[in-house]
Amino acid sequence: MYANRINRIRERMADEGLDALLVTALPNIFYLSGYTGSSAVVLITRENCWFMTDFRYHEQFSQQVWTGYTLVDNTGKKFAEEILPNLADTATIKQIGFDAAHVTYTALQKLQVADNREFTPTTGWVEDLRIIKDEAEIELLRASVRMNEEVLEACLNIIGPETTEADLAAEIHYQALKRGAQGYSFDPIVASGTNSSKPHAGFTSGKLVPAAPLTIDMGIILDGYCSDMTRTVFYQDCPANWEKIYRLVREAKDQAFAAIRPGKLGREIDAVARDMIYGAGYEGKFEHGLGHGVGIEVHEQPTLSRMGEQELKSGMVVSDEPGIYLPGQGGIRIEDMVVVRENGAENLNELSTELRIVG
Amino acid sequence: MYANRINRIRERMADEGLDALLVTALPNIFYLSGYTGSSAVVLITRENCWFMTDFRYHEQFSQQVWTGYTLVDNTGKKFAEEILPNLADTATIKQIGFDAAHVTYTALQKLQVADNREFTPTTGWVEDLRIIKDEAEIELLRASVRMNEEVLEACLNIIGPETTEADLAAEIHYQALKRGAQGYSFDPIVASGTNSSKPHAGFTSGKLVPAAPLTIDMGIILDGYCSDMTRTVFYQDCPANWEKIYRLVREAKDQAFAAIRPGKLGREIDAVARDMIYGAGYEGKFEHGLGHGVGIEVHEQPTLSRMGEQELKSGMVVSDEPGIYLPGQGGIRIEDMVVVRENGAENLNELSTELRIVG
Repeated sequence: MYANRINRIRERMADEGLDALLVTALPNIFYLSGYTGSSAVVLITRENCWFMTDFRYHEQFSQQVWTGYTLVDNTGKKFAEEILPNLADTATIKQIGFDAAHVTYTALQKLQVADNREFTPTTGWVEDLRIIKDEAEIELLRASVRMNEEVLEACLNIIGPETTEADLAAEIHYQALKRGAQGYSFDPIVASGTNSSKPHAGFTSGKLVPAAPLTIDMGIILDGYCSDMTRTVFYQDCPANWEKIYRLVREAKDQAFAAIRPGKLGREIDAVARDMIYGAGYEGKFEHGLGHGVGIEVHEQPTLSRMGEQELKSGMVVSDEPGIYLPGQGGIRIEDMVVVRENGAENLNELSTELRIVG
Repeated sequence: MYANRINRIRERMADEGLDALLVTALPNIFYLSGYTGSSAVVLITRENCWFMTDFRYHEQFSQQVWTGYTLVDNTGKKFAEEILPNLADTATIKQIGFDAAHVTYTALQKLQVADNREFTPTTGWVEDLRIIKDEAEIELLRASVRMNEEVLEACLNIIGPETTEADLAAEIHYQALKRGAQGYSFDPIVASGTNSSKPHAGFTSGKLVPAAPLTIDMGIILDGYCSDMTRTVFYQDCPANWEKIYRLVREAKDQAFAAIRPGKLGREIDAVARDMIYGAGYEGKFEHGLGHGVGIEVHEQPTLSRMGEQELKSGMVVSDEPGIYLPGQGGIRIEDMVVVRENGAENLNELSTELRIVG
């Protein structure tokens, strides 16, 4: 698996006349090696895979990293001056690609002191591979989605008259780690009542608001893969006006799902949900994109939004998350994760999106 | 407070011949404005403070951001082509500083399409202010430290024969959010038995190992300020060899604390603890630095390590965290947070570092 991924990087190096690719972003390093530590740099050359990390991570290197890599201890050493000149194949490394979206101006200045080397910006070489998930990755995403659903179910069960948004956020964290998650894709959103009108609300110390939407947007990391799910439920009661909006958002989500297939553009899927919501009188009340890729990171390519010009392909995994937000009143969002398949799409979520009253 | 911070930025702009400073790192934006959202760009000009964010954060802008800022909606707009030319003082903005340590190569390319503007790298202008905490910030750090201690105390109380490292990590998260923390400075380290020999262990699903060290390194974020604390306790029993090592680490920590005062270099404080540990026969068993600054971010300047050339000044807040790590056996680390004061240092932690047996 790692060998195949690295071969594809080397093919692109050959195509573009580079001798090496410097990989600095940790999600990309994980994808190419299996490493989950928090400090490392990888250099893929024509013949070698060099894995540079300091003494703190040498044990983790031997436990996690694909055996095709050679460990280079970089404790206290400068890459350009002290590491690069001492690699076995240093003489063959003249043209080095770096990831322009991850390397800062300061970092590039430090690289460019290397004698007789040319550093060339590249964009998204590893991300271009990551965008198509293989079946093993889809199974990891499915497991992450399933655990995320179990966590939400457990959290909804604790809701009582004194429950606050922060209580539910705490419970989400607790239940996820107890079940074996390594962490969270993002800080959960637990937004009740008028708070739910903010698409990116966090959580507050306020109690749940009766007869109002309660939006929970959450994700975990399991075996390196992220989940991302939103459910809007109603605390104690669902007024008729909210029920109508809920059904509209749910229908928009389902229609968008039904439109997903290879060959469609991201913006075409977005338009399915957006046109339905705007057409029902909620123009301007759904201003974020419909969805985004999910994988090793919770926000990846492709983008399902008005700016989504990328063509969907089999093996992409995207969120499908329309919403309607009424400032001062509240909001509804429903989100599942979807795999693009040869003849359509597969929903990774199993948890019902039926209107649900809790507490 | 914000006005004063921005005045100091403007003084430096004047000194270095810049018309504006572009601030893109969120911790710096928080320091200069109070904003805690996850997307924004700030441009400080000679006369104006421009705050650019998209529709999702407009409500948060009005709730959090210092009134000296003017909101500029940047939903779907490019900064260089569509925002900058339309600012009221655009004609006076020719020389723009950017933070070289935060702006990527790709981002800089996008900036540099702006006509008739020159972008100049700057390094750490806001961080240079942040390194000295005022009394209000120290009180926020103290509150964060205090809550972090309460969380640890609550977690140690749940330990029983079936407790795993992951159980304790889950409990840390739960107790922190229940008490009102906004989040965590970092994923907690809960490392029992031989796991504790890795300074950067995470946590596993394994049960606590009897008669062995249990190292817990944890921090919360409260009102925007981080805490960071480590305690090593012993599960059920403490063998004599570990007791000896524990006392040595504790003494090294206390001696380093006693040496902290304005005018000392970071490496001089590091050397106090390191010399004591190495001198006792543990050379090579304490390879990380003694400490680091803590504030809005959990790792800030200054550095207390062999490379710490910065002079300590009153108002700096640093961690003091020596350790001894024996591969295959286990490790000990003890960490408090310390304020550099005019005549010495103040320990922000109150939780005892006496040897403690739990469970």
